[in-house]
Amino acid sequence: MAGVDGGIMFPADKLRGWTQEVFQKIGVSRDDATLLTDSLIEANLRGVDTHGITRMLCVYVERIRKGVMSAKSKLVVVREKASTALIDCNNSIGQVGAARAMRMAIEKAGQTGVAFTAVTHSNHYGMAAYWAMAALTHGMIGFSSTNAPAAVAPTGGCTAMFGTNPFAIAIPAGRELPVVLDLATTVVARGRIVLHAKQDKPLAPGWAFDHRGIPTTDPHTAMKGLLAPIGGYKGYGIALAVDFLCGVVLTGSNYGTHFPGFLADNMIDPTDVGSVFAAVNVESFMDLPEFTATIDKALQEIKGSTRAEGVKRIYVPGEIEFDMKAERLAKGIPIPEQVVKDFIALGRELAIPFPET
Amino acid sequence: MAGVDGGIMFPADKLRGWTQEVFQKIGVSRDDATLLTDSLIEANLRGVDTHGITRMLCVYVERIRKGVMSAKSKLVVVREKASTALIDCNNSIGQVGAARAMRMAIEKAGQTGVAFTAVTHSNHYGMAAYWAMAALTHGMIGFSSTNAPAAVAPTGGCTAMFGTNPFAIAIPAGRELPVVLDLATTVVARGRIVLHAKQDKPLAPGWAFDHRGIPTTDPHTAMKGLLAPIGGYKGYGIALAVDFLCGVVLTGSNYGTHFPGFLADNMIDPTDVGSVFAAVNVESFMDLPEFTATIDKALQEIKGSTRAEGVKRIYVPGEIEFDMKAERLAKGIPIPEQVVKDFIALGRELAIPFPET
Repeated sequence: MAGVDGGIMFPADKLRGWTQEVFQKIGVSRDDATLLTDSLIEANLRGVDTHGITRMLCVYVERIRKGVMSAKSKLVVVREKASTALIDCNNSIGQVGAARAMRMAIEKAGQTGVAFTAVTHSNHYGMAAYWAMAALTHGMIGFSSTNAPAAVAPTGGCTAMFGTNPFAIAIPAGRELPVVLDLATTVVARGRIVLHAKQDKPLAPGWAFDHRGIPTTDPHTAMKGLLAPIGGYKGYGIALAVDFLCGVVLTGSNYGTHFPGFLADNMIDPTDVGSVFAAVNVESFMDLPEFTATIDKALQEIKGSTRAEGVKRIYVPGEIEFDMKAERLAKGIPIPEQVVKDFIALGRELAIPFPET
Repeated sequence: MAGVDGGIMFPADKLRGWTQEVFQKIGVSRDDATLLTDSLIEANLRGVDTHGITRMLCVYVERIRKGVMSAKSKLVVVREKASTALIDCNNSIGQVGAARAMRMAIEKAGQTGVAFTAVTHSNHYGMAAYWAMAALTHGMIGFSSTNAPAAVAPTGGCTAMFGTNPFAIAIPAGRELPVVLDLATTVVARGRIVLHAKQDKPLAPGWAFDHRGIPTTDPHTAMKGLLAPIGGYKGYGIALAVDFLCGVVLTGSNYGTHFPGFLADNMIDPTDVGSVFAAVNVESFMDLPEFTATIDKALQEIKGSTRAEGVKRIYVPGEIEFDMKAERLAKGIPIPEQVVKDFIALGRELAIPFPET
């Protein structure tokens, strides 16, 4: 989980309203600000604070104000077929490109059964699940993946060549909550290593390598080293495939070692990531009511299967996040004190006061 | 790796000719026997002996002779759109259904840019990579995945609910060998546990659980227990997504605990697996020469990146298998002595003498 525990609680709607105003103030159109804000707040609601306003708002604002990311949307469809599209994002906001690409994938899949779209020269697009989930209300299975600056070495290597390269798959259900799988191809996120380093707590074996590619459980050594991919060479292979699909192959964006640093530590060059999106129309394979009923049954079987000792509940992918959303809609979104201070300062600067709790 | 080390060496062509005759003798058509044999021998050549004739020939033959799998192809396209198709395999040989589904995916992707096809009521289809690789010569990216009888529990559970559920992705290159990623969603295959049990050798931590869902390094305990998914809950999520896509969702085949045992230990009921296939036409996104040149560059960067101490070479996905194929084409395919005995006995029974080395 990429969530925060402590902090001051704010109602989602207050954060939403303020965030939208902030983006509009720095030149983002009303529609784009609404879209971008929704993707960030949804991440916070689902407990994925690393992709919510908590970590992303100030970074995005700085990039836009410094002109490293374009406030204005400049999307151009450069190639298009009945079931595919390539969109040049021209350094527009990642979420704006992603929304267009996912919308095109859904429309095309409605016609032809399946569609696969890609954006090039794009930016950080937020939480991968947000885009996959857009397919759900259309009775479709959604997919999305993006590449990212390098943090993972190939098996046997010690140069970071691949990002955490996440992918998400969303599958609609009936009475049950939909399946929403969203995972980075590393065992843990870098944020987890940072947290352990702050607390001087050893890492679990298998999380990270030092800068020479040797496994380490020392969080400080790991901070200067590499993240371990899931399943060793298997995760390396998945990360490579994502990088090739999103970066090299289909979009002509950055890949491998060619990224100009991470989001927050390079405020000069565009990130230039590539992302891919897909939608599969369920009705092309099975009638939707039969499909959702079978998914419900399969989910109930998994959730009702024998639990290991001491385990209270078996979760299916996305369930923890849906629970979290219900809780945060009721109790508010926690914003750590330091981040609240940053938001108050930003609000003052832009003359859009950050709301009281 | 799922290969065997020891054994008697046979030239691939001799094994191919004999295998084809065996399948024809038990009622498989000439074309289907050729196709099926090629998929099995290709697995052997690539060192994936678990999916070659080494492990599969006698199992397939027994299933066909007992009428558990149909020798005759009875494929019916039950749903079709411009970019999708659902094929009812009607218990035909898995490879026959897979070949048809992949061919349709490639043809459709040539028209619309991308295609996604599925087979239902099918059987074991061999090595996933074989189907993904079929896209390569068409300038396309190939994908395939299949579900399988359960060996993996959900996180927190101790009932096997998911198969090893492999998937494969093949990406064409230029001068470099293509990228061929083919992986099961478990840390190791069951065969690896069997091998350790035979040698009384402890397992590495993280490979397996006992029947109560508690991690174990004892191979005998693990034999009665569960395989660990890659990356813990992440691999569980991937295995679930594959099972839902291949089994429940898109094909109406078996899923979860509904399989009637493994291939070799149930000779009464059809396996009834589902499999999915996809092809992405590169030209829909980027001109092929530019694409293959960029892939070559990316591959060279990875292979030339700094190696960890003691590492002689950094491999990219599929490279070890291509090396193995070159070696086995030159030196032959090793068949373990016990398997040679089985083949000689089968040859006698069918009056198709197994060839001398």
